[in-house]
This record gives sequence, C-alpha cells and structure tokens, in this order.
Amino acid sequence: MQGDYVRRIVQLALEEDLGTGDVTTRATVPADLLARGYVLAKSPGVLSGLEAAAAVFHEVDPRVTFEPLAADGDRIVPGQHLARLAGPARSILSGERVALNFLQRLSGVATLTAQYVAAVAGTRARIIDTRKTTPGMRLLEKAAVRHGGGHNHRVGLSDGILIKDNHLAAIGGADRIARAVAAARAAAPHTLRVEVEVTSLDELDQALAAGADVILLDNMPVEAIAEAVRRTAGRALLEASGGITLATVRQVAETGVDLISVGALTHSAPALDISLEIELQRADGEA
Amino acid sequence: MQGDYVRRIVQLALEEDLGTGDVTTRATVPADLLARGYVLAKSPGVLSGLEAAAAVFHEVDPRVTFEPLAADGDRIVPGQHLARLAGPARSILSGERVALNFLQRLSGVATLTAQYVAAVAGTRARIIDTRKTTPGMRLLEKAAVRHGGGHNHRVGLSDGILIKDNHLAAIGGADRIARAVAAARAAAPHTLRVEVEVTSLDELDQALAAGADVILLDNMPVEAIAEAVRRTAGRALLEASGGITLATVRQVAETGVDLISVGALTHSAPALDISLEIELQRADGEA
Amino acid sequence: MQGDYVRRIVQLALEEDLGTGDVTTRATVPADLLARGYVLAKSPGVLSGLEAAAAVFHEVDPRVTFEPLAADGDRIVPGQHLARLAGPARSILSGERVALNFLQRLSGVATLTAQYVAAVAGTRARIIDTRKTTPGMRLLEKAAVRHGGGHNHRVGLSDGILIKDNHLAAIGGADRIARAVAAARAAAPHTLRVEVEVTSLDELDQALAAGADVILLDNMPVEAIAEAVRRTAGRALLEASGGITLATVRQVAETGVDLISVGALTHSAPALDISLEIELQRADGEA
Amino acid sequence: MQGDYVRRIVQLALEEDLGTGDVTTRATVPADLLARGYVLAKSPGVLSGLEAAAAVFHEVDPRVTFEPLAADGDRIVPGQHLARLAGPARSILSGERVALNFLQRLSGVATLTAQYVAAVAGTRARIIDTRKTTPGMRLLEKAAVRHGGGHNHRVGLSDGILIKDNHLAAIGGADRIARAVAAARAAAPHTLRVEVEVTSLDELDQALAAGADVILLDNMPVEAIAEAVRRTAGRALLEASGGITLATVRQVAETGVDLISVGALTHSAPALDISLEIELQRADGEA
Amino acid sequence: MQGDYVRRIVQLALEEDLGTGDVTTRATVPADLLARGYVLAKSPGVLSGLEAAAAVFHEVDPRVTFEPLAADGDRIVPGQHLARLAGPARSILSGERVALNFLQRLSGVATLTAQYVAAVAGTRARIIDTRKTTPGMRLLEKAAVRHGGGHNHRVGLSDGILIKDNHLAAIGGADRIARAVAAARAAAPHTLRVEVEVTSLDELDQALAAGADVILLDNMPVEAIAEAVRRTAGRALLEASGGITLATVRQVAETGVDLISVGALTHSAPALDISLEIELQRADGEA
Amino acid sequence: MQGDYVRRIVQLALEEDLGTGDVTTRATVPADLLARGYVLAKSPGVLSGLEAAAAVFHEVDPRVTFEPLAADGDRIVPGQHLARLAGPARSILSGERVALNFLQRLSGVATLTAQYVAAVAGTRARIIDTRKTTPGMRLLEKAAVRHGGGHNHRVGLSDGILIKDNHLAAIGGADRIARAVAAARAAAPHTLRVEVEVTSLDELDQALAAGADVILLDNMPVEAIAEAVRRTAGRALLEASGGITLATVRQVAETGVDLISVGALTHSAPALDISLEIELQRADGEA
Repeated sequence: MQGDYVRRIVQLALEEDLGTGDVTTRATVPADLLARGYVLAKSPGVLSGLEAAAAVFHEVDPRVTFEPLAADGDRIVPGQHLARLAGPARSILSGERVALNFLQRLSGVATLTAQYVAAVAGTRARIIDTRKTTPGMRLLEKAAVRHGGGHNHRVGLSDGILIKDNHLAAIGGADRIARAVAAARAAAPHTLRVEVEVTSLDELDQALAAGADVILLDNMPVEAIAEAVRRTAGRALLEASGGITLATVRQVAETGVDLISVGALTHSAPALDISLEIELQRADGEA
Repeated sequence: MQGDYVRRIVQLALEEDLGTGDVTTRATVPADLLARGYVLAKSPGVLSGLEAAAAVFHEVDPRVTFEPLAADGDRIVPGQHLARLAGPARSILSGERVALNFLQRLSGVATLTAQYVAAVAGTRARIIDTRKTTPGMRLLEKAAVRHGGGHNHRVGLSDGILIKDNHLAAIGGADRIARAVAAARAAAPHTLRVEVEVTSLDELDQALAAGADVILLDNMPVEAIAEAVRRTAGRALLEASGGITLATVRQVAETGVDLISVGALTHSAPALDISLEIELQRADGEA
Repeated sequence: MQGDYVRRIVQLALEEDLGTGDVTTRATVPADLLARGYVLAKSPGVLSGLEAAAAVFHEVDPRVTFEPLAADGDRIVPGQHLARLAGPARSILSGERVALNFLQRLSGVATLTAQYVAAVAGTRARIIDTRKTTPGMRLLEKAAVRHGGGHNHRVGLSDGILIKDNHLAAIGGADRIARAVAAARAAAPHTLRVEVEVTSLDELDQALAAGADVILLDNMPVEAIAEAVRRTAGRALLEASGGITLATVRQVAETGVDLISVGALTHSAPALDISLEIELQRADGEA
Repeated sequence: MQGDYVRRIVQLALEEDLGTGDVTTRATVPADLLARGYVLAKSPGVLSGLEAAAAVFHEVDPRVTFEPLAADGDRIVPGQHLARLAGPARSILSGERVALNFLQRLSGVATLTAQYVAAVAGTRARIIDTRKTTPGMRLLEKAAVRHGGGHNHRVGLSDGILIKDNHLAAIGGADRIARAVAAARAAAPHTLRVEVEVTSLDELDQALAAGADVILLDNMPVEAIAEAVRRTAGRALLEASGGITLATVRQVAETGVDLISVGALTHSAPALDISLEIELQRADGEA
Repeated sequence: MQGDYVRRIVQLALEEDLGTGDVTTRATVPADLLARGYVLAKSPGVLSGLEAAAAVFHEVDPRVTFEPLAADGDRIVPGQHLARLAGPARSILSGERVALNFLQRLSGVATLTAQYVAAVAGTRARIIDTRKTTPGMRLLEKAAVRHGGGHNHRVGLSDGILIKDNHLAAIGGADRIARAVAAARAAAPHTLRVEVEVTSLDELDQALAAGADVILLDNMPVEAIAEAVRRTAGRALLEASGGITLATVRQVAETGVDLISVGALTHSAPALDISLEIELQRADGEA
Repeated sequence: MQGDYVRRIVQLALEEDLGTGDVTTRATVPADLLARGYVLAKSPGVLSGLEAAAAVFHEVDPRVTFEPLAADGDRIVPGQHLARLAGPARSILSGERVALNFLQRLSGVATLTAQYVAAVAGTRARIIDTRKTTPGMRLLEKAAVRHGGGHNHRVGLSDGILIKDNHLAAIGGADRIARAVAAARAAAPHTLRVEVEVTSLDELDQALAAGADVILLDNMPVEAIAEAVRRTAGRALLEASGGITLATVRQVAETGVDLISVGALTHSAPALDISLEIELQRADGEA
C-alpha cells in the first residue's frame, strides 16, 4: 500500500547487523534446530512495530512464522505476550535484535504520543507529528503516532504546502504572505491545502486575508495563541508549534487551537522495553 | 572506507522526505536564487553527524557546498556555527530538515555518551555501545559513540563472537560453556576473540576454565561484579551489562571491570537542538 | 528536488538499450574520436525533456557536455537547435536514441497540453492531467504538462484525497458520501483537501452538504456541468472529467468549471519529431 | 526468462503512484474488506500486457489472485472480460491505475501493429519495430509488437549490428561501406548479422559488394525500393524504413522488400480503452 | 543468515547471461513444456555451490523445484547425481549455464582446498583462505573452503585486524610494531584479535613483546618458520603465508605453525567438471 | 557504453571486502596521510583489468587518481609498472586488494587466451570464449579474451541463437534440425544468425540443408572436423568445441575450421601475479 520504504529500512537494518553472517550462531546452533519465541512486553505502553518486526523475520527466513497476539495501537502491560514465532533457531536468533530495535523504538513513539493525546483529552486539539523523524523510519514513525492516538502532519515535502519564513523571504516585499499564498495556489495541485507559518498576530491577519487554509503559529505564547483563535474564528485551521511539552500542552490545547505539533514525539521518545523469549526445540524432546 | 550503508540511509531519508518533490519551494522560490546557510548549535553537547549532513546536501544537489566549521567529537556551545553552506536556495531548503535530523540524533548520541564517559573518568572501564541501535543508522551511531569518547562493541553479528544464553541452550549439557567456547574456536576465523555471556559467578568460573577471551557479566549486582574482577585476575576481559544508568555507572566502573556496555547510548538518547540559519541572496543585493 | 525517480527511469532506459554494449559503435568508431551534436526540432510544438536528455548523456559518459539552447516550455519551430552536445563520439552515439525517446515523448505531451490550454483560453478552467501516465514517466510527464501550460492533479495516491465510487461502496449506506468525507477528514493529514467523485447532481448536493473541498463531476453532460456550477456557487472547486476532447473542451470550460482533467494528455499524445545531428571531429581536421 | 527489466518498471510505476501510501483508501476502506475485479475491454483491439498487470498486483500484495481470461495477442471486443482478480479491496484499489496504465498502453501498441500487419497481408514483408520505444518499456513493447503479429528488430545495441551514417562517417573514405562491414565482421561476435543503412542505390551496390547480410533503405521512394529489390536479388535482406504510414505501407510491401520498420508502433500508438470493474464483498453478504 | 551478497551475485550473473531474454529457447521450446534435470558430477572432487545453484533456478522461475541429492562438502564421484530439478523446460534451460558456472567454480575451490587439507593431515596446522577471492563471490568461496575442510581467515577488512607493512610504515619509528599493536587495541572493538605481519625473526620478537594475538610470517623460509614456532612457544598464534604450494605445504605444517594461508585456493582453482542432464517431458508421453 | 554490469560487480566486491569498515587502517593510518602507489607486474603475461581497477579506486574515494602506464592487451614483463596511483593513504589501502583481485584474474584470462591464439597462428581459426564465465564478471572476462587476441562468442542468451540438443529434443521428430532452424528464423530478430549444435556428420548435413548460418561441431574427433570442413565448403561457419586444450588446439585449427571455442579461457585460467607498491608520504618529508 506504499512504496518500498519499509522493505528498504528493514533490509538495511538487517544488512548492517548480519554483515557477512552470524558467526556465533553458525558455530553453536545446529542448522536443523527449531525454536519458538514470544515477543514480551517488559514495560507498560502502547504497541507499535509489529508489521516491521514481522517483515524482519520474513526477510531473514521466510520459514519463520510470526503470529501477532496483540495489535499495533493496543495498550500493553509488562509480561504480556505480543507475538508468537516459530521456525529455525538460527533464523530467529539472527533476526531477534533487529526486530526488537524496531519494536522498542516505534512503541516508544506510540507511548509518548499517547501521553500527549491523553493530556489534551476533551479539547478540540489534534496532537500531530512533524518531519523531525528518524532517517529511514518516517512512515513507520508516522504510523506509530497514529497508533498512539495522534494524527499526522504531511508525510513529507510533496503532500502538503507549508510556507515558512525562508519561503516568505524568497518572495519578499511587504505583501509577501499574500503573494506566497497566491503563488502556491497557482503552482500546486488543487488537492493540497495552503498552510502558512506566522510568528505574530499581525502576520496572522495577513495570512487570513490571503485566504490561507491553515496557519501555523510558530513559538507563540499561550495568550497570543488564544487571541489567534479568537481572531481566526474558524476561517482557517490553526496549528500551534514550538517547544510544547507534556507540561504545557494542555494549556495550549485549551486555547481552542485545532492542531498541536510536537517534534519530540519522534525525535526524542525513549525506547520501550520489549524482549524476545526463545525456547529451543531439542531433538530429544526437551524444550 | 566502508560499504554503502551511509549512502543508503541518506538516500532513503531524502526519498521519504522529498517524495515526488517539494511543492512549496517550487512554488515560492525562484530556481536561480542562491542562499547561504549556517548550521547552528542551540544547546551544549558533543557534535556528531557532519559527514551525514554533508552527504545529504551533496545528494540533493552537488552544487551545494558544505564547509565544516567544527569537527565531529568537538564540544559545542549554543550559538556556535558548526558548518557553512552555499548554493541554490531551493536545494538548501529541500535538504535542511533531513540534514538536521541526522545531526540532532547523532549529536544526541555523542552527548549522552560523553556523559557516561565523564562519569567513569579515572577508572579502567571503557564505555561501549550495543547492537540496540536505530535501524539503518548503525555505523553512524557507532561513530557518534566514538565522537563522545566511548568505544565500540562489535558492529554486528559478523565481527565478534558473543555466546549468549540461547546459544548455550542450543549446545546443551552441563559443560555447555566449555563446549560452546570450543565450538566457536573451531568454526570461527582466528581473527575473532570468543566472548561468553554469564549470569553467575559459577558460570564465570566455567567460562574462565574454558579459556574465554572476554566474559559478559549480565545483569549482575555490583558486588558480584567486583568478585568477578577478583576471580578473573586479568585472565579475560570483563564486560558489565544490563540496566546500568548514569547514576550507577561510576560504581560499576570502580569494581575494575574492563568494559561497560550501555544500550541507552543509542536507543534512548534525546536529540540535541541544532538548527539551520538561511540567508537568501536576492538579486537586488539584499541578503 | 525529488526522489530518484528520474535517475531510475533514465538508467532503466539506458540499460535496456545498451544491454551488454553497443557492438556497432565499438567496431566502427575509434575510442578517441570526438563529436559535436545538435538536438534539432523537426516539427513545431512545445519543448519538454531537456533535463532527462541531459541526464541520459551524463549517465552514459560524464565527459559529454550538454548545453541547452532553449528551455522546457518554449514553443519551438522546425529547424531550431534545442541543445548542443560535445564529447566522445562513441558516447554520443550510444546515448542518442534514448535521449531522443525522452524528448520526443515529453514534447509530445507538452504540445498536446498546449493545444488544450489554448482551447480554453479566457475561461477560468485549468487543464489538468490524470494518473493515466506512462509507467515510470509520471514526474517527467507531470512536468511536461506544466511546460505545456497545464496544471497538475495530484501526483499519486499520497498527495491528494479522491473518494471514488469504490471507496463510497466500501463505506456503504445512503449517507455514504457524508461518511466518506468525514472519514477522510479524520484520518488524513490536514494538509490535504478532500475531493469526491460524483456522477449526478443529487450526489453533488450530498457532497456539498458534506463539505467536500473539491468535487469531480464524472462523465456528466455539459448541461449538467453547467447546473453543477450554478448549484455549487463557489462552495467547492469543481473538476470536469471523462471523455473530454479537443473538440469539446471549450464548451465544457465555458460552463465555469474550475478544473478539466484530460487523460489523453499523457496516455495518447503522439511523439513530437526531434532528431540529433552529429558532426564527427576527425583527427585530420575534417568535420 | 530475462533480466529484471519488467520487475523494475513495475516497481517504479508503483512507487511513483503509491508514494508514501494511498490516503483515500486507508481512510475509507476497511483493511479486511475483500473484493473481486474484472479487467474489462471497452474498445476493440489486440490485447497485450497481462503479464505486467499481473506483476503489478503481485507486487502490491501477493494475496491478490490474478486469473487471465484471455491471452496476450487475442483480438478483444468491448465488454469482454480479460482477467479476474480477487483479494483485499485495499490492494486491488491501490494497484488498479498502474495495472491499467500498462494494459492500455501495451494493448494500444499491439492494436496498431495489427493494423500494419493486416495492411501488408499476402506480401513477404515483416512489420518490425524500432528502438523508438517508451523509456523503461522496451521489452514489454517489443512483446506487444509480437502480440500484434509484428516482428522485432534488435532489442538494443548489443543484439544486432546496424551501421548507420555516423558510423560510416567515423570510418571515412570512399570505400567506407566496405571497410565498415569488414570492421564489424572482425570485431563482433559471429552470432550477429551485419546490417548497413544506405540512402541511395549506389550505396546499396556498395553494401551488396561488401557482403552485408541486411541492408536498411533509409527514406527511399517506393520506386527506388523496388529497384533495390531487383538489384539485390536475394543476396541480402532488405529493410525499408522512414516515414512509412498505414496509408503507404502496402505499397512499400508490394515492392518485395523483406522488412518494414515503423517507429510509430511504439512512439505514437494511442492507448486502448480498458478498465477495471470492482465488486466489494461486504461482510453482510452484499456484494 | 547474512546480508544479500549471495542474492546479488546470483542476480547479476543471471542478468548478464539472460540479457533481454533467451531467444533460442523462446523460439524452439513451448512455454508449457515441462522437464526434469539432474546435476551430474563428471570428475571426482568435493562438492560446493548447491545453495547458489538452487538460488539461480529460484530466481529464474520459482516454479522450478531443486532437490539436493548430496550435500556441500561431500566427496563426489563421476556419474553421481548431485541434485534433481523439475519445472518448465524453458526456465531450466535458461538457468542451466549460470547454475553450472557457480557449481563448477565453487566445487573447484572445495576440491583444491581438500587437497591442501589432506596434505597437512596429522599436523596442528589449519589451512586457511585469503582475501584473494573472485570479486562478488567472497562469501560463497569462503564457504567452499570450509566445505573442503579448510578454515576461514577474516571475511574482509571489518572482521579482523591485520597490521601489514604499509600500516607499520604509516605509524613509523623503530617501535612501530609496538605502537601499531597498541593503536589497534585502543581503537578497535574488543571482539577482535590483533594480528601483525612480520618478515623476520627480529620483527617476530617485537610483535611478541607487543602482545600481538596472532603473527603472520610473511614469505619466510621453512627454517625460519620453525624457529619462529620455537621462540613463540604458544604466546601467539602463528600464520605462515606466501608462495606455499601443494608440494611444500606439508613441510611448512610440520614446523608446528598454527595456520597456513593459501591464496591459490580461491584465485587459481580450476573448475570442477559438472553438467546438467535434462529430460523433456513431451505431451505425448515420450521423455 | 554498456549497462551498469561493471559498476555493480565493483560495488559488490568492495562491499563484501570493506563490510562495515577497514578497522586496521582506521586505527593505524592518519586520515590526512597521502600515498602514491604503483601497480606492478610480477609475472609475464597479457594485461587486462585496468578499467575495473580504476573503477575500484574511484568507488572507494574519488580523490584517488589512477593513471595507466600500460594498456589492456599489452604484453607485460615482471617489474613493469602498469599504473600509478595517488591519494589518501587510507583509501588506497582499502581498495588495494579488490583492485588486484580484478587485475590478477582478468590478466590471467588474457594471458591464457594469448597462448591459445599463438598456438593457432597462421590458420583461419578464431579462438573464441564461451558462457562458462565467472558469475558477475562476464563482460570483463569477454573483454579480457579480446585483450588476449581472442574473439567473443555471443555475450549471453539474447545476442545469439544457438540451438542445442535440448532445443532439438523439444522440437522433436526426424526433421527436428530443419524445423528448429525455421522456428528460430521465424521468431528471432533478423539481426541474429542461426547457429546449430551437431554431434555427427549426418546432423551436419541436415544443418547445412536447413540453411544454418553457423554450425557447432560438438566434441567431434579431428578427422570428423576435417571432413565437416570439406562437406561444408564455405556454406556455413563451423565452430569446433569440446575438450580442446593447448596441446590439441593447433591440430583442430589446421582442419580449416572457422571458430574454436574454449571454456577454459574463463573457467580455469590461473591468476596472473600482480601487486601494488605503496609509498606513504609522511608529513615530515620521508617517503
């Protein structure tokens, strides 16, 4: 349902880990030994990354089966089994670390997102992500944000128009906001809304006058955001952005802003603790 | 000096961001407008990622010049200029976010590593990384750990032997440590040391008897680590691992252990705040 | 400024043509013979494809210089020189056919687009393309449409929402248009407008009530399009689509519709006649 | 049975269309909804492209089944079902446009070829294609020509020798045709025939004297072609080329020429109208 | 269990052979004809390459089954069936040559290795390979050496430290061996042993004093090797290297050296004669 | 001048050797140390592989210059300098082994070919190669055969028709040779000659009657080859193949056969001894 971004990051992650082969496993684990495994939650949080984890094991060895026991977006508790694996022991061991690296990071993103979403419960604000994502993980992290209950900003530079300070400077002139909005309307597909970044209420007024569909309020104090909401009166969507933390997000949301974007969701979420339990299936019947 | 890992993650990061093109920039920035830019530190820390950032801009447009004003591994202060760019404004704007994503994450890793290294100053312990890295970023993050003053564990499964619990279980039997070490010696290139993971002092004794070159003490209390150092008496390198934090690392180091591995260096380092200042070079001479 | 789509189609086109090497040229043209060449228009039209043609020769041999003498989007006349090449004769001969294949097709698209654009001159209608493009040539053909004076619809499935009959059927129910629009608003990035395809004035009313941003009138007669314009009264953008030809496009445009999409721009444009004149630079001074 | 050309153009076409994902379908179609589909002819013609269409759906989602109900090369009539699909509705919707883009273009090529072939029925002339193909589609278009009853010229520069004006100029001298043929015989694999392009009867005589296996008569009037056939008297194959249309091809064929190459088969064939009917399989039993 | 090295060399080998398709087979073999085949030994030796051969046929056509009748590492005799294939005749014919090219070369390496291993039977010496491998075949040839009873040196530059003359020259100074060993210990992962190349007994003494783990005796006469073994007395592993042939290897081994590296194993092994017998399964029941 | 085959094998060879980086060089050689190097012949022979060697160093580091001092195809003598390099010492050291692996193997092929060519001097026979090449090295080895004075058979399955026993069996019937030749003529591009493999003089007669352009005499005794030459009397080219060695090739050539194909040229040529001398350019002026 999308280009081969996920396949490529999975392959890259495996290649950098496997290199020219897993020498320890080749030396100590018989080629015909089978194993079962359980992906195991060790901390509470929100799950994300099952698709990538399944892709890792499939890429290592298509004979490994991967059966989810929970779904991305689920709240999980320590001790919970999240997926069940079975297949050649060598293949499970060789894929273990990479699969966990995906699960831990993505579940970390989903979990942090869920905290932000919970903090604004009952307001009209959507918690949205940014382009401050991990290189190569953009689509997986955008999905993790959705799993945590957040929403996505544009995926990248081609599926959204966001006119920022440097674009305005390139246009130049006192009426640069109006002219930039017009230029975007003229040049871009009609399927895209036009969003403009402003840093003051004066610029907000200009953006509204220019007919911007969405206005990003960059690093404004809460009072100014509240005033922006009043002035806009529904004529455009408003996005608050810049330095918003778990401690301050509720206050921002209560201004009535439509969207709150938080870079930390993807650039600074700590990993969630998840591990893999493996049971070897010895030929003599002992597990 | 290495395979094409860095080029591939840079390309992947650009492709997921640029998609089918930067519609905003195409609409608002003339194709012939030039710009200068400065990579700017906004928080104190240790720098890493200049190579990747340079590769990003080179990949977007080879006409963009990227001149480092600091070196990876340098301590940086807020306000410091880290690199200078010049080239077509469109290309600089289109590469900005991806380049910063690399710099912020990698400098975050280097900065956290430096904190661990400082915490063990004066002891014999090396702070080392793990395989708990960001998918696709392994080599860049391993370099970031070095930039922060840490050392690297093996890069992946092919440049180090590490016999873990599941490998021992696959070998089986009461003398499984001895047999696993022997199997690794027999099968692996002679260029690799043999490291074994143990969870008790009894297993440590077995590993020493088996002639392991390196022994990983998994999740042992500090007292047990200290006892392990005494028993080993230099016959093998000792690596402490498992749940070690900035708060506890000094105490572990003071046991005399050789190596302390810390997964958080790469799986949970928060991004360091770094931005890009851009000056457009207007045809009419105004910057 | 975009992912590597253009590079990939250029490489693929060269690989399928060059195969394991140009046996004729290797047998008959000395390795050190130099040549000059001119890209030459042989029919009137609108130029597109210079970027791809330059990329072809650069890929074959970076020593070949390619200097445009006209710009994409220019009207060209038979006999006009469009670009000047110089470099090793072998490399120019080996790249000639592939470069012309790009230029002829893309200029064909630009030329046909320009005819549609001319036909609606003076109306408010934008001529836009569709996703009925040549496999692998999407971005180049989208640019060719712009060079011909047309505008682009969404590039692909990720930069525009277009709810079509099958999406509505999946939602189901009498209020499926309203529910589909709401579902799209809830799930998609706020940067995208919501467009719905309707086949009757009754569905148009539902789409307007649902707050669709853009409404595609699928295969409607001109009278119904005119009525749709009246009913909509500026509350949404209207796109006419389906079986519109050069003979009928003016009539459609005069209804006041905002957008007219024409699949033939990219799926059935005949190639424009363009060739390459080559002058060999013999060692003895004869050209 | 060939390199990965087809796989690569299929992947490229999907990547440019799917981008970072099909937002409309994700928002409106449940992940577990199944569908059936029929590829449907809407115009009469000759079918080509089933292999590529099947590859598209397989690449999008291996769970989609694709069962041909006709064969490439078949004459098809409006309303005829050409293939049957079944699988997840999301996957069928996401692959629909790209699959049709292949089928429409390739069937357009096969259909136009069949018209040329019919025009020369009863003569000895083969209708053959050229290297004026769509970038990336060479092998598929060559197959489409065969499906239309035509034959292939060389696929590219490595599976045929064709000495053209610029090669002759590189050799130089009054006896350049003789020397070029000799050079090709000396340097090329013995598995390749030597073909030379000539523009006059005098050059034809030289080519015959040089022992060329095949001679291309470039842009010659019909009378000259007839004379060339007489002079050649079976000593070489003769190929007529240049500006031959459906209106003139019969006359050319009746000269007794062996081969008639037509660039328009691949560079200017209009798309054939083919669509996809989709039936969603609702959970409640309604189709 | 390793990166995609094997898949890539298999694909490359097929692409260079299949090019734009197997014209002979397409012309003469019906698409629905089935065949069986046997991989047949025609000379005595040691088998290697079954994995690559299976991958070749799987890549050509996943419907071809490939059933090994022997195992890599087996001694084989002329007339022995090594594997059984079944599937479409076209696919078997198109993959035949490439599969045999892998089997013949790799079995040649295994066979030559086995001769060296036999020659040192009863000594402590391991026969090991070098980096003088066929480009693209490194991992397959390393496995072939193991199949022949040999052992592997490091796979490449990242899984072993080997300080050679140029590295020592870069360090410089009279104590360059000591300083180079120390530098490697400081910079490299602790999972790698440090090996140093020496050319004299004096340098050997320095390397021992520096604590090198492994010492490569480069092109030393047998007497010097014997003296090196005495002086080392087990303090380091000793590798003899340089110009050792089947005629001289036993003598070298009897010095008591630990490792003998032989470049010829991979750079000059003649191919082993292996062929493919094919039985077509005619529709009328005749084989 | 050809697809990206050479680039791909060069990249693959470097990736398998460099892996995650050259740890020894990084530890011991300063990043800013420069070096010069000479490619040095150590055995007499014929040179081939300079292009690949240059590509290796360019791929490792574009700053390394590579200046040929001899040309592919030259006879070389021990001690002769074949190329001069200059650049960063680290890059030269990291590329050294891979570049030599190409040069040694390809010069080995050229040298062996030259021996066969010398053996048939004065006869009409061309020495030609086969498809028994090293996987991934096809084009480079075909060039090496030319450098040794030999000629090429078809590169692969798409640039030559060769009807072998299994193709004939697929056609079946007493007149299978005639029907196979006709089928190939009908289906294949007219640019290809038709070659048939025969195993007896009776089959030769059939092939001649069928009008085959080239006939391969498979494993026939010299007397039969001589008789075949007499019977053919120039009506077709004759290729002798099968088990021909340096000891027997002259005798075969003297029968008057046109082509002699020798698999050993590429499957069993020993490497030619070539090395790289490196001079480090120390900062203090010492070389």
